[in-house]
Amino acid sequence: MTAERLIYLPLGGAGEIGMNAYVYGYGAPGEERLILVDLGVTFPDMDSTPGVDLIMADVTWLAERKDRLEAVFITHAHEDHVGAVGHLYEALGKPELVARAFTANIARGKLSEYGIGENAVRVASAWPEVVQAGPFKVSFLPMSHSIPESSALVIDTPAGRVIHTGDFKLDRTPLVGEPYDPDVWAEVSKPGVRALVCDSTNVFSRHEGRSEATLGDEITKLVASVPEMMVATTFASNVARVKTLAEAGVRAGRSVCLMGRAMRRMIEAAVSTGVLADFPSTVSPEDAASIPRENLMLIVTGSQGERRAASAQLSRGKYLGVELKEGDTFLFSSKTIPGNERGVISIMNAFSEKGVDVVDDNDGLYHVSGHANRPDLMEIHRIVDPQMVIPMHGEHRHLREHAKLAEELGRPGVIAVNGTMLDLTGNAPKVAEYVETGRTYLDGSVRIGALDGIVRDRIRMALNGHVTVTVIIDEEDEPLGDPWCDVRGLSETGRSNAPLQDVLEEDLSQFLGRAGAKTLRDDDKLEEALRRVVRQGAQDEIGKKPEVTVVISRLSA
Amino acid sequence: MTAERLIYLPLGGAGEIGMNAYVYGYGAPGEERLILVDLGVTFPDMDSTPGVDLIMADVTWLAERKDRLEAVFITHAHEDHVGAVGHLYEALGKPELVARAFTANIARGKLSEYGIGENAVRVASAWPEVVQAGPFKVSFLPMSHSIPESSALVIDTPAGRVIHTGDFKLDRTPLVGEPYDPDVWAEVSKPGVRALVCDSTNVFSRHEGRSEATLGDEITKLVASVPEMMVATTFASNVARVKTLAEAGVRAGRSVCLMGRAMRRMIEAAVSTGVLADFPSTVSPEDAASIPRENLMLIVTGSQGERRAASAQLSRGKYLGVELKEGDTFLFSSKTIPGNERGVISIMNAFSEKGVDVVDDNDGLYHVSGHANRPDLMEIHRIVDPQMVIPMHGEHRHLREHAKLAEELGRPGVIAVNGTMLDLTGNAPKVAEYVETGRTYLDGSVRIGALDGIVRDRIRMALNGHVTVTVIIDEEDEPLGDPWCDVRGLSETGRSNAPLQDVLEEDLSQFLGRAGAKTLRDDDKLEEALRRVVRQGAQDEIGKKPEVTVVISRLSA
Repeated sequence: MTAERLIYLPLGGAGEIGMNAYVYGYGAPGEERLILVDLGVTFPDMDSTPGVDLIMADVTWLAERKDRLEAVFITHAHEDHVGAVGHLYEALGKPELVARAFTANIARGKLSEYGIGENAVRVASAWPEVVQAGPFKVSFLPMSHSIPESSALVIDTPAGRVIHTGDFKLDRTPLVGEPYDPDVWAEVSKPGVRALVCDSTNVFSRHEGRSEATLGDEITKLVASVPEMMVATTFASNVARVKTLAEAGVRAGRSVCLMGRAMRRMIEAAVSTGVLADFPSTVSPEDAASIPRENLMLIVTGSQGERRAASAQLSRGKYLGVELKEGDTFLFSSKTIPGNERGVISIMNAFSEKGVDVVDDNDGLYHVSGHANRPDLMEIHRIVDPQMVIPMHGEHRHLREHAKLAEELGRPGVIAVNGTMLDLTGNAPKVAEYVETGRTYLDGSVRIGALDGIVRDRIRMALNGHVTVTVIIDEEDEPLGDPWCDVRGLSETGRSNAPLQDVLEEDLSQFLGRAGAKTLRDDDKLEEALRRVVRQGAQDEIGKKPEVTVVISRLSA
Repeated sequence: MTAERLIYLPLGGAGEIGMNAYVYGYGAPGEERLILVDLGVTFPDMDSTPGVDLIMADVTWLAERKDRLEAVFITHAHEDHVGAVGHLYEALGKPELVARAFTANIARGKLSEYGIGENAVRVASAWPEVVQAGPFKVSFLPMSHSIPESSALVIDTPAGRVIHTGDFKLDRTPLVGEPYDPDVWAEVSKPGVRALVCDSTNVFSRHEGRSEATLGDEITKLVASVPEMMVATTFASNVARVKTLAEAGVRAGRSVCLMGRAMRRMIEAAVSTGVLADFPSTVSPEDAASIPRENLMLIVTGSQGERRAASAQLSRGKYLGVELKEGDTFLFSSKTIPGNERGVISIMNAFSEKGVDVVDDNDGLYHVSGHANRPDLMEIHRIVDPQMVIPMHGEHRHLREHAKLAEELGRPGVIAVNGTMLDLTGNAPKVAEYVETGRTYLDGSVRIGALDGIVRDRIRMALNGHVTVTVIIDEEDEPLGDPWCDVRGLSETGRSNAPLQDVLEEDLSQFLGRAGAKTLRDDDKLEEALRRVVRQGAQDEIGKKPEVTVVISRLSA
């Protein structure tokens, strides 16, 4: 009989920041009972995923083993941890979802979009409550982040204890959520921890992290100094920041209005689950329009420049009855995620054109990160003192740097990117297997694979343009009439100054006139030849080789 | 008779950082003799300009007045100042180009791609030499930047002196190019300066700029600490940095190899024109392969993550016989331009996967900017003491901040974005006219307008996918056979699990079966109806409304 083992397998989140999905298993090899920690999304961009709505981990491996999946635990309610629960619930065999009350509220909202009822989510209390899931005993250990009830997981297995940090920072005064308590961490670590699976986001930030509470006074000062309307944006799901901003507004004597559906939904959920009882009262956008601008503060969505969010809408003109003007100030209380700069800068310039003063995080005066910096990571390594450190929640460079840090501190650190199954049973982590993983796109209402070629085709059309060629072949395998071209996304004229369409049609006509019966009879051959004619003709005329669709209509004999 | 006037009209560069092109004119309104300062490019991105090769200012206004264009002055050899000379030379009526020797060398290289001879460029010496161009007397005033012979222009007109700074920083030890000399600036400013037209790039940087010379020791230390191969990247055209890096390599006892065509071309031009006589000797990429890696330093192109440049190639595998490995270090001695983060980060992660240590500018230890920071701008305002300040070389937010700074310092500052013609003749700048401007794209081998809809169509295909519909209508206006669909960039199946193509073809068939003679006879009506059927069908199946090309073939009666 084979010895039982404890395995760790990231399906998402280890190799990128986003779409977190981490599998743990315990049992005989190939028969492990499984749990999943988090099931998040990441966001598409025009460079690599044009037209895609959301990106999730490819959970095929897990779906094929869904009968062994005991439960899915959600550490906190950020999109990159909970965003995919609705989209993948069915594929994973309707597993039991387990979360704390606020997280459960958000998860239920996502499930309800698929008509899935409340009971799908089981609400757990914080540590020391234990949730049994097959061979796993799991506790939600409260930890400071930037959203209520964010938690690390204490995962007890027959092979020992694993601590999975989730997202965290060491904040003793976090405004929302429970503060970091080193004593509690020391206590859960006392029995010995086999592996610390740890957030790596800020491993390159060399200074100690700062508390959310350091921002309030500076932001209040800023709000008070603004002659007309104050507007601030942050992530809708950064509940701590929304509260910091709202309180600053109230202290500066202003009415506060939340704008943007995601933000209102998030705050409502936090208030209704009782985790944000002391949030200042707000006015509705309709009422805001009638409040003198010097008495008003808006807190709005769209800190990452999203085109349809409130920030972008306000930068383009009137939104929900409000329009920004000279004398107003717009604050980005946020860090721009790499890749979103263009969108954010374009909003800044649009406000500049309106005479609105734009203020950004100003080297940390108006923003602190929700993740542990390098010295904070060192503190957690020290307190938990695990047998091994497994960096997660990071791009490859973050995981590598974090593993190096662990080694420097005297503990084995192992880089396990998505698809790397580690056996944690021995004294040092060991790669057990490489599993095929990847990304799944939500595209419109369907899920497609990142490697299906669908998005690749879109990118090619965007880079090269597209030409449709139509020819009709009659019953005798002879062309009937002239071939026809439709050109999309290409210059109308080129080198010869004649319309590109005409030039291509002439090229095609000449080719068909010369083509032998063998070619004309064979759809594949003819299609390939016509494609080549178009690509060569376009290259000569305009210096581009377009994507070509060839439609051959044969009149049946 | 109307009084003569001095006008300023940015066609590019005022409202973005890139594609600089500034017109000055002097004469009776509508009859001004004109000069153009700089003719640069900016670079496309996937978000807004997929498939485009280069972006330039739309110079239609100037082309329509080319008989009045006396000359084009190029301040320095960076792409955003000289990159469009070849592409637009013909359109501007083959104007005389004037530049200092090194800049002229680079400009000639660009012109030669269009078969334009050396004589097109006239070489000017530095101030106090004066180039007469109609009513303008223009001198190249040496100024520190990051490329040899970078110059401000002293432009004398019957209405007074204008100083156009070009790109600059206040560097007394710039390594290449002439150092900043406040005495010279005081001297040219003594007669009184009507307008200072001034670089705004770093107006938000609150600290004094640092000299290129501050980097050498730190970079040498880094290079010396690397156990295996050292590789560094910076802008190919940042000649100063390439020299700083090469000298650091030599000091650390390494052979230096330049990789990437643009960089080799730039250094060759600098050496051959005598402005970089003391550049360390280098080895060729072929020879580099045989040098022990601990004795080698590569300086490579691609600091902005460009897919085809040396950095990206090296991150993907072997390039010119060289492959990076564990123990090597890769330095980004550069700042990532907003919008390029994704490409740069993807290279960093690819190196991380190879075990290569990646170092970035490290808060300025390994990079300094080539542009004047806010305190430096204040110094230039003070020394030149112009009647008015016209911020240029910046996005709107930079221009606005710079104009505010000028006002704070007691001088009128005016925001003039592309297309804003200012009359500088009076005591304060006055808007004379708004001219239609925009962007021209080099797309393959042709130039297209930004508003032609061509790139918009490509973006739509990338976001929505594309469907081609073909129907044949016979001599009696009846459909012949079944309609046919070709689907590109869309999921193959959707809600009903049948192939999307089949579902759409069935929808189209049903529609045609029902369609009345009026619709079938009218191409426009039929096309619109078929498009609607496809978009609705796709929306139902996969939740997306694709772009649709409808091809109706009519068999002639």
